[in-house]
Amino acid sequence: MTGTLVVDLLARLRAVRSRTEALAAPLSAEDCCVQAMPDASPVKWHLGHTTWFFETFVLERFESDYVPVHPAFRVLFNSYYQQVGERHPRPQRGLLTRPPLAEVYQYRASVNARLERLCAAARDWPAPEQAALWSLLELGLHHEQQHQELIVTDIKFLLSCNPLMPVYGPLVGTTACAPAATGRHASSDAAQQLQKRQQQQQQQLQPQQQQQDPDWAGFAGGLQEIGHTGEGFHFDNERPRHRVYLAPFALARRLVTQGEYAAFLAAGGYQDPGLWLAEGWDWLQAGGYSAPLYWQPDAGGWSLFTLQGRQPLQAEDPVLHLSYYEADAYARWAGARLPTEAEWEHGARQAPAGSLYQLHDVAWQWTSSSYAPYPGFQAAAGAVGEYNGKFMVNQYVLRGSSAATPPDHARDTYRNFFPTGARWQYTGVRLARDAAR
Amino acid sequence: MTGTLVVDLLARLRAVRSRTEALAAPLSAEDCCVQAMPDASPVKWHLGHTTWFFETFVLERFESDYVPVHPAFRVLFNSYYQQVGERHPRPQRGLLTRPPLAEVYQYRASVNARLERLCAAARDWPAPEQAALWSLLELGLHHEQQHQELIVTDIKFLLSCNPLMPVYGPLVGTTACAPAATGRHASSDAAQQLQKRQQQQQQQLQPQQQQQDPDWAGFAGGLQEIGHTGEGFHFDNERPRHRVYLAPFALARRLVTQGEYAAFLAAGGYQDPGLWLAEGWDWLQAGGYSAPLYWQPDAGGWSLFTLQGRQPLQAEDPVLHLSYYEADAYARWAGARLPTEAEWEHGARQAPAGSLYQLHDVAWQWTSSSYAPYPGFQAAAGAVGEYNGKFMVNQYVLRGSSAATPPDHARDTYRNFFPTGARWQYTGVRLARDAAR
Amino acid sequence: MTGTLVVDLLARLRAVRSRTEALAAPLSAEDCCVQAMPDASPVKWHLGHTTWFFETFVLERFESDYVPVHPAFRVLFNSYYQQVGERHPRPQRGLLTRPPLAEVYQYRASVNARLERLCAAARDWPAPEQAALWSLLELGLHHEQQHQELIVTDIKFLLSCNPLMPVYGPLVGTTACAPAATGRHASSDAAQQLQKRQQQQQQQLQPQQQQQDPDWAGFAGGLQEIGHTGEGFHFDNERPRHRVYLAPFALARRLVTQGEYAAFLAAGGYQDPGLWLAEGWDWLQAGGYSAPLYWQPDAGGWSLFTLQGRQPLQAEDPVLHLSYYEADAYARWAGARLPTEAEWEHGARQAPAGSLYQLHDVAWQWTSSSYAPYPGFQAAAGAVGEYNGKFMVNQYVLRGSSAATPPDHARDTYRNFFPTGARWQYTGVRLARDAAR
Amino acid sequence: MTGTLVVDLLARLRAVRSRTEALAAPLSAEDCCVQAMPDASPVKWHLGHTTWFFETFVLERFESDYVPVHPAFRVLFNSYYQQVGERHPRPQRGLLTRPPLAEVYQYRASVNARLERLCAAARDWPAPEQAALWSLLELGLHHEQQHQELIVTDIKFLLSCNPLMPVYGPLVGTTACAPAATGRHASSDAAQQLQKRQQQQQQQLQPQQQQQDPDWAGFAGGLQEIGHTGEGFHFDNERPRHRVYLAPFALARRLVTQGEYAAFLAAGGYQDPGLWLAEGWDWLQAGGYSAPLYWQPDAGGWSLFTLQGRQPLQAEDPVLHLSYYEADAYARWAGARLPTEAEWEHGARQAPAGSLYQLHDVAWQWTSSSYAPYPGFQAAAGAVGEYNGKFMVNQYVLRGSSAATPPDHARDTYRNFFPTGARWQYTGVRLARDAAR
Repeated sequence: MTGTLVVDLLARLRAVRSRTEALAAPLSAEDCCVQAMPDASPVKWHLGHTTWFFETFVLERFESDYVPVHPAFRVLFNSYYQQVGERHPRPQRGLLTRPPLAEVYQYRASVNARLERLCAAARDWPAPEQAALWSLLELGLHHEQQHQELIVTDIKFLLSCNPLMPVYGPLVGTTACAPAATGRHASSDAAQQLQKRQQQQQQQLQPQQQQQDPDWAGFAGGLQEIGHTGEGFHFDNERPRHRVYLAPFALARRLVTQGEYAAFLAAGGYQDPGLWLAEGWDWLQAGGYSAPLYWQPDAGGWSLFTLQGRQPLQAEDPVLHLSYYEADAYARWAGARLPTEAEWEHGARQAPAGSLYQLHDVAWQWTSSSYAPYPGFQAAAGAVGEYNGKFMVNQYVLRGSSAATPPDHARDTYRNFFPTGARWQYTGVRLARDAAR
Repeated sequence: MTGTLVVDLLARLRAVRSRTEALAAPLSAEDCCVQAMPDASPVKWHLGHTTWFFETFVLERFESDYVPVHPAFRVLFNSYYQQVGERHPRPQRGLLTRPPLAEVYQYRASVNARLERLCAAARDWPAPEQAALWSLLELGLHHEQQHQELIVTDIKFLLSCNPLMPVYGPLVGTTACAPAATGRHASSDAAQQLQKRQQQQQQQLQPQQQQQDPDWAGFAGGLQEIGHTGEGFHFDNERPRHRVYLAPFALARRLVTQGEYAAFLAAGGYQDPGLWLAEGWDWLQAGGYSAPLYWQPDAGGWSLFTLQGRQPLQAEDPVLHLSYYEADAYARWAGARLPTEAEWEHGARQAPAGSLYQLHDVAWQWTSSSYAPYPGFQAAAGAVGEYNGKFMVNQYVLRGSSAATPPDHARDTYRNFFPTGARWQYTGVRLARDAAR
Repeated sequence: MTGTLVVDLLARLRAVRSRTEALAAPLSAEDCCVQAMPDASPVKWHLGHTTWFFETFVLERFESDYVPVHPAFRVLFNSYYQQVGERHPRPQRGLLTRPPLAEVYQYRASVNARLERLCAAARDWPAPEQAALWSLLELGLHHEQQHQELIVTDIKFLLSCNPLMPVYGPLVGTTACAPAATGRHASSDAAQQLQKRQQQQQQQLQPQQQQQDPDWAGFAGGLQEIGHTGEGFHFDNERPRHRVYLAPFALARRLVTQGEYAAFLAAGGYQDPGLWLAEGWDWLQAGGYSAPLYWQPDAGGWSLFTLQGRQPLQAEDPVLHLSYYEADAYARWAGARLPTEAEWEHGARQAPAGSLYQLHDVAWQWTSSSYAPYPGFQAAAGAVGEYNGKFMVNQYVLRGSSAATPPDHARDTYRNFFPTGARWQYTGVRLARDAAR
Repeated sequence: MTGTLVVDLLARLRAVRSRTEALAAPLSAEDCCVQAMPDASPVKWHLGHTTWFFETFVLERFESDYVPVHPAFRVLFNSYYQQVGERHPRPQRGLLTRPPLAEVYQYRASVNARLERLCAAARDWPAPEQAALWSLLELGLHHEQQHQELIVTDIKFLLSCNPLMPVYGPLVGTTACAPAATGRHASSDAAQQLQKRQQQQQQQLQPQQQQQDPDWAGFAGGLQEIGHTGEGFHFDNERPRHRVYLAPFALARRLVTQGEYAAFLAAGGYQDPGLWLAEGWDWLQAGGYSAPLYWQPDAGGWSLFTLQGRQPLQAEDPVLHLSYYEADAYARWAGARLPTEAEWEHGARQAPAGSLYQLHDVAWQWTSSSYAPYPGFQAAAGAVGEYNGKFMVNQYVLRGSSAATPPDHARDTYRNFFPTGARWQYTGVRLARDAAR
């Protein structure tokens, strides 16, 4: 590892680690402690777990005089790595009022300092060891970025459960509960950034839609390749790059909007079982759902809970927080279908500038592809091998990235995945259809 | 209301209200926010609800210029009063990270100040109105004392779920999680008091056991009266005083000890269905219980989770945290039975000094009496009438009071009640048996 | 046992045993096999279990050359006797398509024959052994009568789940599913008897209501005795007879009618939480109930599923199939309350002819008394001791007897009991109130 | 439709319809009525539903004077066709003791007769109408064959729940419950056939295994086609035939055996989370499974519940009744993987005689392919379109066919599908692996 590389790495380490803390800055210790549902985790747990990842996979391996920061943290902050040992039960993460938030910040600082020392020392290491360190640090940073997105989605869900309708960002109103009013929550740069990026995404759309077919971009298909290639960072599930055969297809240039989805609702889409997968219809009945997550009927229209409080529906903005079932039903109603992940990736890579919008930074886009290993996939040896492979069943792949995805974290080959009923992520729809053959 | 009475009342108001806050003092905002199970509530919610009780039943009724402190609090802090209106769902009390703890303290201070002003003004009121105010303030204070006990039991349960085994009091060790170590939790007078009272109770036992029958106190029974009489405060469920016929019976002089209960475990008591009620045996199997709550096998013996951390079993101390089923099974194994609530109350009242120990301040004592209205019971009109009456089904009466009961809150006529499976209260057993007839 | 006694006993044995089979006669093997809910049992299982009771507690004990009819039956037909050994799980009784119904009838015949042989042989036994045999045979007959009532209630519930609305009795119409039409179900004397008795009960009411207070019968109370006394058969839970003190009270002369209950529904009784126990209101919401079991809205009124098919509400007939919660809520709405079991028993015994109607043979009458041991109660030794005692928690006592109760099975001291949510029994309400208010 | 075709069709209709009844012949009316779990259906319901399919989709459409056999049957025997209307709830199919079994047989006979009359009349119809009739009759026959397999698997599951271990076939022993002994169950040709076919399958294996690689057959892959082609019957989900790209791969020549699977168990396979998908491990823990369905520890080895009673493990026979999770874990342990459905189909079609055994008639073979529409798939219009398409989520494809599959029902392009936890079908494993890595 050259000095330059080390400097770069340290700069990224500091940037990523401090962005996580910036995301938590608008939140009180109470906000950070509570778990609103088993699928979500407390922010404090995210802060600890991302640190645990570095401690366990980097410090424990590379520090010659390694001593754990706290022996209990190995269990408390282990998410699902069986090979690391015991894990605190996931649905009980919200019971951990101790360690207090301040101590988790100390934990972060302590591990940060030791990582910096380790990197400094590594300048003198043999190249293979340097590479191993670099690779695990990289993984840890991307891992932390994944949890940054989860912090946003988990805190959004938590705040939505509160009848006081708390706002996360600096746009807070004047109620007694507003963080600004209590003076205990710093103004949130991170929340402002999120908001700004969302606005940019929407503006970007307007000027360019003067194509042949204003709505659809066609692709000839054929024998193509998907999967990650080259040197850059990628998760193991993006490899190996491999061939797939694609029939001609078309992708919608932009995502389905809130206005379009509201039309689906108005047309009785949630009352017609013929539009739904059988399991989706059962899901709908059992949950009593009548709209996407965070939508609420409001004076003849809809309003949406957002990180900036409840806001009226924005007809041109993309619809978010859909389950797979809802995305699939909408597509059927619209006479289209969801794309496969291969269509999405091939389309994204082939699209000339201006032909496909909102590929990234707006909403994760459900594909009809079940999450499965690519041909030839091999999980890494050791606990790190549990990162992705063991989840490859009964989940569906989402492509793109969302307004909550950290900068520098999105890739066209990125494979996000969630179960079909998940709605608290920033999940939307890009339609696809078969091309005239 | 004379000046003296007002002064007394205000003194008690200040004492009770500040004791609640003293109980919360050793806890962080995080500790106070989390709900560990649906039966328990967050400490912050207790702090708010006891204040809501005064605001709703006193200020709203007596202040001529009443304005709510926060319109949402009427719903958020309503426990179960249907006639007051909507209630935030009980299992979701732990999701209320807002209002922050500091704001709930402001709520308390604000209502306290308005109560004081009201009392000052009331000096000039007509007697009936004064009496109505006095009566509701009294009720509010006793209500708050009930929640003081719940604060202790709920926080004990929450802390017990944490693998770090946090301690509540000043006896905290030196781990990273110790409140003292983090400097954010004041030393706890309330916890010290609790501990001291427990110690006193145990010492009190030793010298006096030189009776005829060292273990049992006999009572002739006959046509007797139970229920509250006279002027002092009581809950509506303690009235009317009424006649009951009692066959001759005996009560154990003291509560069942941890050592005795450990002998029951060692004798296979949890493996023999013949000792259990059918429903109790099902409860045991479904829950996989093998000892009282907070007991853990430990180097050939048992250790117990306490508010001062995990401690070895104290053979002479009373066993706590038993369900009705466990209390009943133990009694059957011991060749005895649980007392009825009439036996308990009559026994407590008739007992010459030194004949019955541990009637109060140690453990609530399960009786075999289902919680039911006394003959002639009438619930009060209005929302306050929901206080007790609507819970009179499928619960069992506990008599006495516990180490967690506030001072000046216990009465021989007091009827506590819980469902048969509840274990997180300070619940123990005093045996009874039929006398030779 | 004298010859005469043996003859009497054998006559009763044959009568009771054959009545059970008469109850099953209108049913097909399919009807007899299915379990409609965990609380109910298949008729075939009742046929087997009542036989098992005699085999296990009589033949196994008294036959010197005892050989089991089928070794597996000891487990299959054991209901809940832990001391007898393993039990087939209750919720899986409906999976026992084997042994076939015909084999269970053979089982009955075989055990009947062995019981007759045993009784013949017992003429020469010493008196104590004769008495022991007699006592267990008596118990077995009363046990079988209890299951006769369960056969009626369980089959009624099963048939009510069938959209074809099958009828149980001979009044069957002409649909393809009518038993008569298929020629495979004998005309049902038992069903006719049930119907006739119900009609008699209702007629009996009309002429006699010319009392002082046409609706209420008053009782002075005082120190009284309840519980069984004398020589006749009784279950262990009816003893010991003991003293109770009763304040003056009144009992309604007749049961609440369907018309009265319909008025409660029309007045919004199921929408007003103030009328319900808190647990009752939760039960109502969770179950989505809007009327008693088997009631269905019908052209502006109500129709009821009965064993003779769906029939219009009969305003003068007593309301049946109420849970404790519904009975309690109705009483509160009516400005009354449920009687205690002591009030009911004392009232039933003291009532001059014509002062209280419908004490028996119409509906079991909920009391406000939790099912508990009488003072001095001791369960019998051995497995038979599990008959009653182990269920004495979280159930409420019902007094009287119902249209489904076998002849010669009712007693004023009889203590029936069910959990508060049970509705599939013939359960109704007799109101009570305090006297001199 | 020519006379010959009609004759052929009628012959097949009679053969398929009567085979269904032959499968039910060894069963009593009780056996046919009970539903052992929500996933399974009573045999009587299968008998009715397969008839309903013909009545609803053929008679109702083509009979000019159509009158329903029984108006309620349209609801009772509708499985999941929303467009046909209401459906009796699936988990309550076992409550339908009426119509009695005999009436369902009458229903079958009546519909059979009307189908025969319709076919006779159809000789004079225009060709397009004839074709439509033919096509729906074909679908109905294949539909009925699918239910024939379900009859076998559902009854096997039901009988396995009975501690008497009933046998389905003529190999019945001498217990009191043996159908032969009671004289009420005809000797079962169908059961004998099943047994015979299973034996043939196993014998067929022995002689031919003298290949280059005795265990694996290699395939070069490349751009291939899968899906049904040509004129023969197929379900809609087998179309359109389409191109897929396959990397070189190998398939195991035969299925995993019981002996091999027992070795996996002996090696601790059910105790090592590293071998399991995360969801599979959770499934294992929640269900407490320690072996495949129907396996029971037996004197140091295993015995298996079969339709011929409990039998010792047959080491050379293929393992059956595995969930997807178990199949996947075994494959991982064996250093292999599950095939994709495209690999399976291509391999099956390309395999020279003797290179792959047990493709059909032994066990359905789990593939790693999620059940999804083929590119260009369009569900048929109308209710028939609900046949397959709406289930294409969260299920996995099984290929081949099993010992319980009816003759003439298997195809290499056939796509069976079940959720990952299903075990009561005849489900096994054929391993796959990447070639030349």
